[in-house]
Amino acid sequence: MGSRSDAGLVQPCLDMLRELGIPFEVRVLSAHRQPEEVREYGLLARDRGLEVLIGAAGMAGHLPGVMASWTILPVIGLPLATSELSGMDSLLSVVQMPSGVPVATVAIGGAKNAAYLAVQILALSDGRLAEALTRHKQEMAEAVKAKDSKLQG
Amino acid sequence: MGSRSDAGLVQPCLDMLRELGIPFEVRVLSAHRQPEEVREYGLLARDRGLEVLIGAAGMAGHLPGVMASWTILPVIGLPLATSELSGMDSLLSVVQMPSGVPVATVAIGGAKNAAYLAVQILALSDGRLAEALTRHKQEMAEAVKAKDSKLQG
Amino acid sequence: MGSRSDAGLVQPCLDMLRELGIPFEVRVLSAHRQPEEVREYGLLARDRGLEVLIGAAGMAGHLPGVMASWTILPVIGLPLATSELSGMDSLLSVVQMPSGVPVATVAIGGAKNAAYLAVQILALSDGRLAEALTRHKQEMAEAVKAKDSKLQG
Amino acid sequence: MGSRSDAGLVQPCLDMLRELGIPFEVRVLSAHRQPEEVREYGLLARDRGLEVLIGAAGMAGHLPGVMASWTILPVIGLPLATSELSGMDSLLSVVQMPSGVPVATVAIGGAKNAAYLAVQILALSDGRLAEALTRHKQEMAEAVKAKDSKLQG
Amino acid sequence: MGSRSDAGLVQPCLDMLRELGIPFEVRVLSAHRQPEEVREYGLLARDRGLEVLIGAAGMAGHLPGVMASWTILPVIGLPLATSELSGMDSLLSVVQMPSGVPVATVAIGGAKNAAYLAVQILALSDGRLAEALTRHKQEMAEAVKAKDSKLQG
Amino acid sequence: MGSRSDAGLVQPCLDMLRELGIPFEVRVLSAHRQPEEVREYGLLARDRGLEVLIGAAGMAGHLPGVMASWTILPVIGLPLATSELSGMDSLLSVVQMPSGVPVATVAIGGAKNAAYLAVQILALSDGRLAEALTRHKQEMAEAVKAKDSKLQG
Amino acid sequence: MGSRSDAGLVQPCLDMLRELGIPFEVRVLSAHRQPEEVREYGLLARDRGLEVLIGAAGMAGHLPGVMASWTILPVIGLPLATSELSGMDSLLSVVQMPSGVPVATVAIGGAKNAAYLAVQILALSDGRLAEALTRHKQEMAEAVKAKDSKLQG
Amino acid sequence: MGSRSDAGLVQPCLDMLRELGIPFEVRVLSAHRQPEEVREYGLLARDRGLEVLIGAAGMAGHLPGVMASWTILPVIGLPLATSELSGMDSLLSVVQMPSGVPVATVAIGGAKNAAYLAVQILALSDGRLAEALTRHKQEMAEAVKAKDSKLQG
Repeated sequence: MGSRSDAGLVQPCLDMLRELGIPFEVRVLSAHRQPEEVREYGLLARDRGLEVLIGAAGMAGHLPGVMASWTILPVIGLPLATSELSGMDSLLSVVQMPSGVPVATVAIGGAKNAAYLAVQILALSDGRLAEALTRHKQEMAEAVKAKDSKLQG
Repeated sequence: MGSRSDAGLVQPCLDMLRELGIPFEVRVLSAHRQPEEVREYGLLARDRGLEVLIGAAGMAGHLPGVMASWTILPVIGLPLATSELSGMDSLLSVVQMPSGVPVATVAIGGAKNAAYLAVQILALSDGRLAEALTRHKQEMAEAVKAKDSKLQG
Repeated sequence: MGSRSDAGLVQPCLDMLRELGIPFEVRVLSAHRQPEEVREYGLLARDRGLEVLIGAAGMAGHLPGVMASWTILPVIGLPLATSELSGMDSLLSVVQMPSGVPVATVAIGGAKNAAYLAVQILALSDGRLAEALTRHKQEMAEAVKAKDSKLQG
Repeated sequence: MGSRSDAGLVQPCLDMLRELGIPFEVRVLSAHRQPEEVREYGLLARDRGLEVLIGAAGMAGHLPGVMASWTILPVIGLPLATSELSGMDSLLSVVQMPSGVPVATVAIGGAKNAAYLAVQILALSDGRLAEALTRHKQEMAEAVKAKDSKLQG
Repeated sequence: MGSRSDAGLVQPCLDMLRELGIPFEVRVLSAHRQPEEVREYGLLARDRGLEVLIGAAGMAGHLPGVMASWTILPVIGLPLATSELSGMDSLLSVVQMPSGVPVATVAIGGAKNAAYLAVQILALSDGRLAEALTRHKQEMAEAVKAKDSKLQG
Repeated sequence: MGSRSDAGLVQPCLDMLRELGIPFEVRVLSAHRQPEEVREYGLLARDRGLEVLIGAAGMAGHLPGVMASWTILPVIGLPLATSELSGMDSLLSVVQMPSGVPVATVAIGGAKNAAYLAVQILALSDGRLAEALTRHKQEMAEAVKAKDSKLQG
Repeated sequence: MGSRSDAGLVQPCLDMLRELGIPFEVRVLSAHRQPEEVREYGLLARDRGLEVLIGAAGMAGHLPGVMASWTILPVIGLPLATSELSGMDSLLSVVQMPSGVPVATVAIGGAKNAAYLAVQILALSDGRLAEALTRHKQEMAEAVKAKDSKLQG
Repeated sequence: MGSRSDAGLVQPCLDMLRELGIPFEVRVLSAHRQPEEVREYGLLARDRGLEVLIGAAGMAGHLPGVMASWTILPVIGLPLATSELSGMDSLLSVVQMPSGVPVATVAIGGAKNAAYLAVQILALSDGRLAEALTRHKQEMAEAVKAKDSKLQG
């Protein structure tokens, strides 16, 4: 995340990763105030064994795009609604990347889905994760069903 | 893709996959006109050995989201500018997914990047692909440099 | 509705249906988390004697469109303002349907009007409903008139 | 339609109605330039045996809403992209109706869907129309399948 | 105004008219729920000696446009921020009128300016009003100056 | 108008004024490049006997607002679609005026309506103009009727 | 600033200028209510030794553009979120200036950045300011680093 | 500029700089494809004696923001209309910068104004440039006047 004040908005992402048993690290790194640190982070990410990067960003949210410029790892972009424009600026700044440097963008404020997408990617080469995801998908369906049943009385 | 008429917009995606040596299949499948076929496709995708799905969609573009509802594979969403609203409707319909069912969205009309993102994901467990991506990244940088040099005369 | 948390926003729709004496059922069904249940619901709706479906949806609101893909019954779409974008994403995801699969969309948060539209459709073959609607239309006009009179003192 | 110049945009609606064998009438009626005629049309529509009204409108498109104010028949609104704003103004002016006077809105430029929705409504009390719609739905699915097969070679 | 609930938003308009000594009447008239009353009001307005009409409207705000369709008097449109879309729908529905039926639109929520514009129009044939406006303009300038002086300490 | 290149967009306004027999003058005056000339024009307008000012403006279109700051005459604002944003910037820059300095805004590109509104204002104190407007309103209705009749064959 | 009520939104700009040791003056000047004062201010600004002007503006925010029309000094525009439209109107009215009269626009509500940009401009000819900026830039990076370290525990 | 294909859109900027006699260099540098080169360019810019940087950018246009992260020189951002969204994405990505790293943004496609703003900044410490700007401002006013005179015949 680009700022410590984004922590609350990013929390559901961390919770979901924890729930699915994915080891991860959380960093506060500002694309605009710490370009050197972001560069180093991006350049070393793959060698350090990281597999998927998630960048949260509000306003002219460059963090995921800048990380993507320094690595070939998939970068997930999480646009935050931290500005006057309810995140429309964040969304466009994150998703509208030029050819050759994609950012895998999720919904504005979609912190859980950023985690979920990361796990879907990791599950491609991890059978146990794939099983966990399949189970989680069934549980989601059943959770909705339970609420429906309750509504029906 | 949801319609044969989207083929031109999707072509750069196929070209990029071919250039990077990724085997793939192309299907015309409409989320709204063929829900049964899309369901079957989504349900069988993983067992058939597919790893990443890319769904292109214009207007109220539900194809990637509907595919994501049927599988745990990562689904990349490619919003197309096929409507009166220049793709803003496509973008919002693709990216604003609810919790638990993410779509990894790229730019409006970002067909190349949809391919590129797929390859970044596949490269996580394929060293040769990773090398190809690294090489491609360097070539992109050099291509810009060459154009700059030419401009300088 | 796609989520139990939408119940408050959908309530005015149910109230209006009750007021006009229309029998109905309410279901929590998620297009993305329960595609199988939505499919079954859509496929059986007509045989079960349902006549009009109303789907409420926020964000990339696919519920009405997905239901419409499974049935020939008219589907009314109610876009909800459940996202950061005040429902503009919901509106575009609901209304911008491709050719052959329309969704009859009402205003963002227009729960009452979703009910009202359903009744207008049912009244085509039900003279008593048509009378009820005519009466209701007159009462609305008189209610405004009464408020105007009160304002005039 | 509100203006003769909208005829081209409305044509696919008429074609679809003809294809599905629905008798209809086409009128040029301007909500703003002929309020008296629109009033008369709306007030008499039901007694004349009309069942569903379709109003096409561009810019501050009031035609469907004004018709809905004069009748209890369901009114379908077709927003046209006739303005500088690509139909966003038409869409909002048509769909954002106040409580008690809904307009069943289809996509911007969705002329075919306006017809299709009308037929879905009429099919509720006409078994042969319902069969025609079911057949048409299958044909749409098969048409996409045929294009897909051709693509596969 | 189209609804009694808009009264608070319209009040600054009435206050300004009173402050400038303009006789006026306030009516609650709904374009969609009382088309007959609005018609009668519009058709008789000029004969009753009214000179300028002000219509306040939220969402698909048709009131000023419908009034303009029934009269040749200038109609001022006041878009209200009564919807999920912060008045953008109201603004477009009020201002984007077709050729031949203009609505003189002021800012979203610009109740004071609706009054002010009416007075500017009336002042064309009323020297005392023109003097009052000139004085008011000077007072506005002096009021800002006073605040600036206070800030300078 | 603010630039000679706007002349084509403004022409329908002049045609309509001529058709209704209103004497007028056309000026190219740029709010940003000729603030002194605009000031002088605004300050003298009323003494020179002008009654209504019409300002056409594209992009950050300040011309009508700046004129309104120099005079108490009613100022009509005509937003032009001269920018990348199809006139949405022009519209907001023209209509969203602060309290005390209204601009009577017409549709984007609504040149005819700018003229029409001016005439409606002038007709308040000119019976012959009022008659001309009434006649014109009838002719508009009849013109649509004629087109409708032709369509009916 | 155009209104005393904007003072809170402008305060971070003044704080930043003070922190960086820049002498400045604050004025309440309304482009629309005090065109004469704004003109005088703009015409005299350079002779009085001012070097950079900062204009804050909400809604149809003309203040920075009008100041730019009266001077050749660089004018920084600060769009404020004072309207129903969250500052989108302010942004477009400030940034979309015609050729020859630019306004250097910062983010909606970006008061600190307006100050920061002014200092960057002044630092071009003031080595000590440049040093202060360089130091400030390092401190920003370290501040983020400190927060990151704290997060790592 | 970030891509050679932007050259046409940037040309008016270069023409204006030449016309005003400002020495400059033009570079093709991509923030996303050449982060290393952009970093080096930004870090060395001040020591090489550059005074103002202008970055042109389309879509998620990060170039000016990334340059601003590497230097304390003022950076002018020129949003380009190179995307499906007519430059609205470019504008928001360029202007909505976080605190501490401003980009002085001009209009979408405002290439001339980017140059003009740069010259206004340089003129602060160069009396001859200031005179050139003053002259140019007068010539602009006279050019409009000449067109107006021609129009008056």
